Amino acid sequence: MTLDPAIAARLKRDPQGLVPAVVQQYDTGEVLMVAWMNDEALHRTLTTGRATYWSRSRNELWTKGDTSGNVQLVKSAALDCDGDTILLRVDQVGVACHTGDRTCFDAGELPVSGAR
Amino acid sequence: MTLDPAIAARLKRDPQGLVPAVVQQYDTGEVLMVAWMNDEALHRTLTTGRATYWSRSRNELWTKGDTSGNVQLVKSAALDCDGDTILLRVDQVGVACHTGDRTCFDAGELPVSGAR
Repeated sequence: MTLDPAIAARLKRDPQGLVPAVVQQYDTGEVLMVAWMNDEALHRTLTTGRATYWSRSRNELWTKGDTSGNVQLVKSAALDCDGDTILLRVDQVGVACHTGDRTCFDAGELPVSGAR
Repeated sequence: MTLDPAIAARLKRDPQGLVPAVVQQYDTGEVLMVAWMNDEALHRTLTTGRATYWSRSRNELWTKGDTSGNVQLVKSAALDCDGDTILLRVDQVGVACHTGDRTCFDAGELPVSGAR
């Protein structure tokens, strides 16, 4: 399988050939997680409707939910203005985080002393 | 200025010492943009309430809106489960994108043939 050349030409990959993907619950707007994609992961995501990423720790493609059941059904995708980030809007089945939290940011609040 | 050591210890930076920051409009949930932070950018963001990033192209700190007026007032911040991504919830004054679009993803829709 090969990524559409017209899309591939717009991608600005990092030195590892990857772009970050921001994953958002399509109806509530929750930011669920950030993962990484190479061309093959993006191709599979766009053509199968199941969010697929490149694991930087395991050096392999992973389709979210294959082992956990917590699949992400893709509703839409967009590339940003300079082609180096993807926004994926999905319907998250179950939870997004391996900790069991709904999102990967639920437990990580940082203090903002200068909040406006 | 130095980042709180308790926060610095939780950060997993890339080889350039950076982490990506997903920037979200706090009330509507729009994902506005993704930018990059080093320790100093995060420290300034948390303590001044104005979103501040590291520019990978110009190799310098930039406080969003300093030249455009399109400032980002920080409402909250969170670190993800593995410490390598920040979610910043802001009130975006004006537009986020240098193209004049509200978000950096407005013009970049990708075709999802397998959308569920």
